[in-house]
Amino acid sequence: MDAQEFRRHGHDVVDWIADYLENSERYPVMSPRRPGETAALLPPHAPEQGEDMADILADFQRDILPGVTHWNHPRFFAYFPANNSAPSVLGEMLSAGLGVNAMLWQTSPAATELEQSVMSWLGELIGLPGPEAGGFHGVIQDTASTATLCALVCARERSTAFAINAAGPEGLAGAGPLRLYCSREAHSSVIKGAKIAGFGAAHVVLVDGDESRAMDPGDLDRRIRADVAEGLTPCCVVATVGTTGSTAIDPLDRIGPIARKHGLWLHVDAALAGSAAILPEKRWILNGIEHADSLVFNPHKWLFTNFDCSAYYVKDPAHLEQAMTINPDYLQTDFDPDVANFRDWGIPLGRRFRALKLWFVLRSYGARKLREMIAAHIELAAEFSRWVQADDQWELLAPVPLNTVCFRLRRNGWSEAECNVRNKELMDRVNAAGRIFLTHTTLEGRFALRMAIGQTQTRREHVVEAWEVLRSTASAPTSG
Amino acid sequence: MDAQEFRRHGHDVVDWIADYLENSERYPVMSPRRPGETAALLPPHAPEQGEDMADILADFQRDILPGVTHWNHPRFFAYFPANNSAPSVLGEMLSAGLGVNAMLWQTSPAATELEQSVMSWLGELIGLPGPEAGGFHGVIQDTASTATLCALVCARERSTAFAINAAGPEGLAGAGPLRLYCSREAHSSVIKGAKIAGFGAAHVVLVDGDESRAMDPGDLDRRIRADVAEGLTPCCVVATVGTTGSTAIDPLDRIGPIARKHGLWLHVDAALAGSAAILPEKRWILNGIEHADSLVFNPHKWLFTNFDCSAYYVKDPAHLEQAMTINPDYLQTDFDPDVANFRDWGIPLGRRFRALKLWFVLRSYGARKLREMIAAHIELAAEFSRWVQADDQWELLAPVPLNTVCFRLRRNGWSEAECNVRNKELMDRVNAAGRIFLTHTTLEGRFALRMAIGQTQTRREHVVEAWEVLRSTASAPTSG
Repeated sequence: MDAQEFRRHGHDVVDWIADYLENSERYPVMSPRRPGETAALLPPHAPEQGEDMADILADFQRDILPGVTHWNHPRFFAYFPANNSAPSVLGEMLSAGLGVNAMLWQTSPAATELEQSVMSWLGELIGLPGPEAGGFHGVIQDTASTATLCALVCARERSTAFAINAAGPEGLAGAGPLRLYCSREAHSSVIKGAKIAGFGAAHVVLVDGDESRAMDPGDLDRRIRADVAEGLTPCCVVATVGTTGSTAIDPLDRIGPIARKHGLWLHVDAALAGSAAILPEKRWILNGIEHADSLVFNPHKWLFTNFDCSAYYVKDPAHLEQAMTINPDYLQTDFDPDVANFRDWGIPLGRRFRALKLWFVLRSYGARKLREMIAAHIELAAEFSRWVQADDQWELLAPVPLNTVCFRLRRNGWSEAECNVRNKELMDRVNAAGRIFLTHTTLEGRFALRMAIGQTQTRREHVVEAWEVLRSTASAPTSG
Repeated sequence: MDAQEFRRHGHDVVDWIADYLENSERYPVMSPRRPGETAALLPPHAPEQGEDMADILADFQRDILPGVTHWNHPRFFAYFPANNSAPSVLGEMLSAGLGVNAMLWQTSPAATELEQSVMSWLGELIGLPGPEAGGFHGVIQDTASTATLCALVCARERSTAFAINAAGPEGLAGAGPLRLYCSREAHSSVIKGAKIAGFGAAHVVLVDGDESRAMDPGDLDRRIRADVAEGLTPCCVVATVGTTGSTAIDPLDRIGPIARKHGLWLHVDAALAGSAAILPEKRWILNGIEHADSLVFNPHKWLFTNFDCSAYYVKDPAHLEQAMTINPDYLQTDFDPDVANFRDWGIPLGRRFRALKLWFVLRSYGARKLREMIAAHIELAAEFSRWVQADDQWELLAPVPLNTVCFRLRRNGWSEAECNVRNKELMDRVNAAGRIFLTHTTLEGRFALRMAIGQTQTRREHVVEAWEVLRSTASAPTSG
């Protein structure tokens, strides 16, 4: 494909994306495809002869698109928002065109320095103290899962004085069992990270929650002391600001001093909720963040930046560098003493130029508009929760501090088990109809529907429609 | 930014990329920027008020672009190729526009099934046996570093019967030290992965090489037996097909039976070289691949697919699933028994729709054209190496089986140390001049210049020019 053809097809693709971002409402939110349906449309072998891009783009629309679940649909209320935006797509396009690898400062000086700048801007927007105030240095990771794994590895290494990686004769097998604490509602990536980093799933200690399902600091302290008494080695606390299930907010200002007292690493997983801290009235969710060693939140969830773009902040990058550094001859440069080489700040060596899209988003919207959009999502969730509370047939299952509403059809004479089945059926029927897409969680054994409100195009009318769809589906006779 | 504005700026960006991909020769290959120069151009805070995209794009060109090192420049011969292409950029654009998360089958059925299809196509192109023949299943990862970490975690878990992650009381601390074997020339990501996965750097056993720096199977066997005799637990062999330094090729057909005999996981790191196996005449580099448990190679290096796109193949995905699975309620779907949920096949939960760009590349070029382009790079490297050999002033430092030439100015009466300094100075002068960019490695203490030939736009004239630049710079008086 020569430059002229790229230009032509590129314009077509831009027009298609423009249309898609504006009119994604025309699609069913969740793909109706069954397992294997897409695969059956694809040939078994790569073609020997090159094909026309016009044909490939046509096949994309005919064979692939119906198998896509539309994350940017204004009536996508499932999982978490993954809100995208036009400025972000433009940034990603440029990044793809440049094809730069940001592994070392030398491999593209502007990629590293722009990343440092926009991560500093972003940290300031959510109220993080910067490095000049003994605060946080930022780096972009792919996902919160990866960032949390980095935190666990740093915690593991700090608590063993880096002996394991430096020159220890035993590997991790030489250390006693290390203990990791998080709330019962912490994200699955904490356990996954503990498995990968070799803590062992059995050493993830689930701390009790309070009535809002936030971590109970008293129980944390008790469990740490009990472990010490048993000769185990407490290593790390992962506090969650905005749990995946119900956006419960662990109190950092009370957890922080406990972690510090016991010498534990404090990692804060604010993957979704961190974005809300750009609002002065929600800044409290990070109260106590000064106690943390690391923090992650995802602009690719709720800050209009297309996936992937996860913002990871650490107080002392030396931990990352000591745990992760590899320094083969072929990666050494004369600049190394004077610059940050982000290859040492995460797991992959190669790194995309992700700062570009974040820069585009922050500048194109500006802080004021970003605050307005986040506040609007929070207000829609509050309004939805008021509708649920005002209706006898329904009930809220969790407080709604941010953008996620956990609710269900009330028992109405059903057993708890029956109520779970009815709500699951309701969800399936609603999703299959394609008007809205929402998913579930389980809270104390109760099947909870979750409305996660935060897509870029979501307006009040879409939330109104969701509520109408839910109510009418609940009152319609089931086919079974 | 509304759809109309996106359309307008999107067209501008496409035109810019078309022009960039066609005319990147106008830029100095390596950015001449000094540390801090880019940062000094950026304001200290995010703007409160949104800014015009036209201004942002102008700033990109004025402030950022001069800080970019041009990986897609036809005279970029540094590190490794990261060859990009027009079809790949189009695929990435669509993926960004869709903003789909491919973490579960349900979160976009076509994303998972297209990934399965194109990974099967790609495996077939390099001669891998497919699942139907007891062979390999493919999944896309971000980088080879991450894929290798996945392999090490699976190896660790298999050799401890998954006790660590399932319910073992001790975490990794309960296992004896696990030993990992690779050649002295293996990529730094092997040691990094061993550190992250808790093996400990000290348990990475560096196996001697033969005269081509490929792993000596006899030495591997001796070292494994010595470890067993000492009561250590051999766990994993990482064989490298195409080392980063000098593209040495470990003999899989001799290593495989040794790994199997001792019950070790065999992971093959073919990050760069794997692409060459699409050529029938280079298929031998993967001879013995049937013994491997896992293999990684990077279409984002040398298969015209923009970064990131790393092809990871495993013989038995159950290892990945057992080691990585987390199954919180909020991620469960009714389809789970019938589909692959790729969240369990790697570290991050969230996953981009990367299959799209690989599909675009494989279809747009077709297998025949891909073979031609790879073969042309290999022929250029062979030709360059003949020029080096034919010139008394220069010498080759390693065989050239593929696209990378390691060479230097001969000693010419200098001591080895002096020769190293002279070659380093030569490299710095050449790179600073901006016509070409190449990097180095060290082979048995000798500073080696490396010409890695493989960018999409690189033609014979660019390699000729590189040789001229090197020779004329070497014969020019130094300023010092």
